[in-house]
Amino acid sequence: MTGPHPTSGLDDVVHQRHRLGILTIAAEAKRVEFGYLRSTLDLTAGNLSRHISVLEEAGLVEVDKGYDGRRPKTWVSITGPGRTALAEEMAALRALLTRHENPPS
Amino acid sequence: MTGPHPTSGLDDVVHQRHRLGILTIAAEAKRVEFGYLRSTLDLTAGNLSRHISVLEEAGLVEVDKGYDGRRPKTWVSITGPGRTALAEEMAALRALLTRHENPPS
Repeated sequence: MTGPHPTSGLDDVVHQRHRLGILTIAAEAKRVEFGYLRSTLDLTAGNLSRHISVLEEAGLVEVDKGYDGRRPKTWVSITGPGRTALAEEMAALRALLTRHENPPS
Repeated sequence: MTGPHPTSGLDDVVHQRHRLGILTIAAEAKRVEFGYLRSTLDLTAGNLSRHISVLEEAGLVEVDKGYDGRRPKTWVSITGPGRTALAEEMAALRALLTRHENPPS
């Protein structure tokens, strides 16, 4: 085998499955609403909040609170570094899949 | 969007990056030696042991201890359920990559 194993290119902040879900969905739009993330990923509000906080502290997403009419809303948007980190994760996953499908002999 | 998000098909037992590394490498051979896993994945012995135990408790790998001459050795082999779980993880990752490259409009 040559070079590091593909899993060594994975970062737990991004790789954790719920955070990977949040980043992937956030990358598809300018911003996504908290309730949409919650229902799409089937998470409790507390669990989703916790994972968004980890991503926010790492600078990978930004959180904006506001109102839609009278209803308070929380919006999540992916940052530039968030897009970079997600692209790196996806590249590592692609390398892992390629290796799994074509194992070293 | 239709159907559950691809990350909902990920299982933390398999998805955690070091355990994903262990399973991927174990799937490439009949059995792999502890020291080989340790150097390939760049883990401490304690950290690697802990992740192998999680996989063993879930029935995804088997652990055999023996000797190579006088040197004690630990061998790890993937089980049938381990291969099934890894295949499901890889299928979910493939779905995630496909969605990321072709986001829903």
